[in-house]
Amino acid sequence: MNRFQLIQKDSNCPARTGLLKTPHGDINTPVFMPVGTGGAVKGITPEQLRETGAEIILGNTYHLMLRPGVDAVEKIGGLHKLTAWNKPILTDSGGYQVFSLAALTKIDENGVQFNSHVDGAAVSLTPRSAMEIQNRLGADIIMCLDQCTPYPCDESFLKEAVERTIRWAKMCKESHSNENQMLFGIVQGGINLELRTYCAEKIIEIGFDGYAIGGLSVGEGHENMIKTVRHTAEQLPADLPRYLMGAGTPADIIAAVKSGIDMFDCVMPTRNGRNAYAFTEDGPIRLRNSSHTTDTQPIQNDCRCYCCRNFSRAAIRHFFNIGEMLGPILVSIHNLMFYQNMMRQIKEQIKNGTFSGWADEKIEKYRIFNSKTDMAEQ
Amino acid sequence: MNRFQLIQKDSNCPARTGLLKTPHGDINTPVFMPVGTGGAVKGITPEQLRETGAEIILGNTYHLMLRPGVDAVEKIGGLHKLTAWNKPILTDSGGYQVFSLAALTKIDENGVQFNSHVDGAAVSLTPRSAMEIQNRLGADIIMCLDQCTPYPCDESFLKEAVERTIRWAKMCKESHSNENQMLFGIVQGGINLELRTYCAEKIIEIGFDGYAIGGLSVGEGHENMIKTVRHTAEQLPADLPRYLMGAGTPADIIAAVKSGIDMFDCVMPTRNGRNAYAFTEDGPIRLRNSSHTTDTQPIQNDCRCYCCRNFSRAAIRHFFNIGEMLGPILVSIHNLMFYQNMMRQIKEQIKNGTFSGWADEKIEKYRIFNSKTDMAEQ
Repeated sequence: MNRFQLIQKDSNCPARTGLLKTPHGDINTPVFMPVGTGGAVKGITPEQLRETGAEIILGNTYHLMLRPGVDAVEKIGGLHKLTAWNKPILTDSGGYQVFSLAALTKIDENGVQFNSHVDGAAVSLTPRSAMEIQNRLGADIIMCLDQCTPYPCDESFLKEAVERTIRWAKMCKESHSNENQMLFGIVQGGINLELRTYCAEKIIEIGFDGYAIGGLSVGEGHENMIKTVRHTAEQLPADLPRYLMGAGTPADIIAAVKSGIDMFDCVMPTRNGRNAYAFTEDGPIRLRNSSHTTDTQPIQNDCRCYCCRNFSRAAIRHFFNIGEMLGPILVSIHNLMFYQNMMRQIKEQIKNGTFSGWADEKIEKYRIFNSKTDMAEQ
Repeated sequence: MNRFQLIQKDSNCPARTGLLKTPHGDINTPVFMPVGTGGAVKGITPEQLRETGAEIILGNTYHLMLRPGVDAVEKIGGLHKLTAWNKPILTDSGGYQVFSLAALTKIDENGVQFNSHVDGAAVSLTPRSAMEIQNRLGADIIMCLDQCTPYPCDESFLKEAVERTIRWAKMCKESHSNENQMLFGIVQGGINLELRTYCAEKIIEIGFDGYAIGGLSVGEGHENMIKTVRHTAEQLPADLPRYLMGAGTPADIIAAVKSGIDMFDCVMPTRNGRNAYAFTEDGPIRLRNSSHTTDTQPIQNDCRCYCCRNFSRAAIRHFFNIGEMLGPILVSIHNLMFYQNMMRQIKEQIKNGTFSGWADEKIEKYRIFNSKTDMAEQ
């Protein structure tokens, strides 16, 4: 059953709007998913999150399987209950964190063995266990276990990872046992377009409820990413949702929508918020900067977020300066609102048939966030 | 002009309800003031604070004068603007923190000189500057500079502090220059009842808009505190508000209301909230405790706070366990609601003429919070 409904296609580019139906409600795409790492979007309450307009959040299987553990999540009543979020949730497979955070000890056909970054305990993750864990966590959308490659990455390693990702995808499809949950396949292949085509074909053959592009936003840069996204998105079924994992900056997201992507997740708004970096239409603002000491403007004048409606830059700077939690809370709220506003504008522009030109302008304007190397991207 | 209106007096004890009118709205007494140290009640937004029912908050002049400084607060538009709190605010004089936090270098008739706990800078605070700073911060109620004594404290030191507090009070009264702000006098004298009587007489002679009892909740214990409060409150004008500074535990507050006190402030709900200690009708709960790992109950079953309506003890424990800010946020909200619920019950019981017996039961029941030495009181 296809739970995705295409609403509108842009006439000048592959951008589209759609509706994705889940047991916890509908999602209007293109959609941005704030990251709720271990069951909480860092620094804010689910109520504050809802006020930004978020329709779906992402939970990290890796973090949740280590703490509190899948048994505990089940006893608590599932991930929605733990998180106090009754709208849709997507869980990743844990693969990305295993390959980036954990001390990887062994990788073979059965899966990966690693040492927990929390206490060093030996843990394994297999295609079968990734499915079982995600089935039990109870998200609305779950992801296949894949092998995420770094950038740069040599050709033979990339090919091996693609083949493994395909074999694991088959095993995931066979193990998936909760028909209320959509299962998405993941296409790997680094920035090698031939490998991406090959991987996409094989993953589509297996057949999933949606398709993700993994292994990007790992240092390859905006141009490489978008070239790969544009190429790969073309290979994916038009009638199913397409998800670009772990991206990205505002320019990344708009350019990816222009390439036909429907779903995004990224820690940028919250991580930068905690570090006092705010997104604004005119570029990033560092709120620790002494230039804001008596600046009575809000972070962004026309922003309707709770932070901008109530607090001056000077007040926020002061809260960071004295170590008050309110600083990180407020800028996280603002940054999430900035991202959600951008998604609202994207949908509006597609609806009005004006997306393509608007996107080019914004991608150019928002390049400033890509080049600010002091903003944290991962 | 007396801005305090007595509403109802209990027939069995000095407890009373009242209405205190300020430029930022009315306050229903007895009232609990959450502590907004440097312009923020730690861990939560003003909106979340309002939802607990808070009608007034306290700001610390000591912290605000050091950071961001009174010039900056003025340029930002005053303390209400900095804090994004458009209801009443009371500022203390800074005296308590000078005597407890700072490295005191000199005390004489002119005031105190000390080194800032932030950067060691030499700073002075005089009766005149305490008034000027508070006039400029712009709170609705401001406090005289007093000399706060520790417990225990020898007699001659106590007497000296009382005499200095009286002389400073006169200077404060003379310097106070903003008639929109109420100025409260402070009675010192440790647990020496004769000294309290003497100090009260002299402070009342000077004449203030309300009277505070200072120098308690510094280690003297519940019995000593309440004995002193009961005695001192009797010396204070019945038609003006009475404020017990820095108190206290739930039992302290109820017993002090029973002695005729109208206003309270304390960091207990927020400080304990950040440390995972929750107040409940049945005593304190430590949410880090492993017994809560799969406990699906809310902190308190009949509590209507945002935390209890949405999160299980297990979820909150998990958030503390993984270091998510949401843990401290949620328990701070709950604890503030516990205190505000207690104040609502107090007013209700006085209104119904049933306060005295109810209070005795609650004081007995809530003793458990006094004896829990691992709950942070200061």
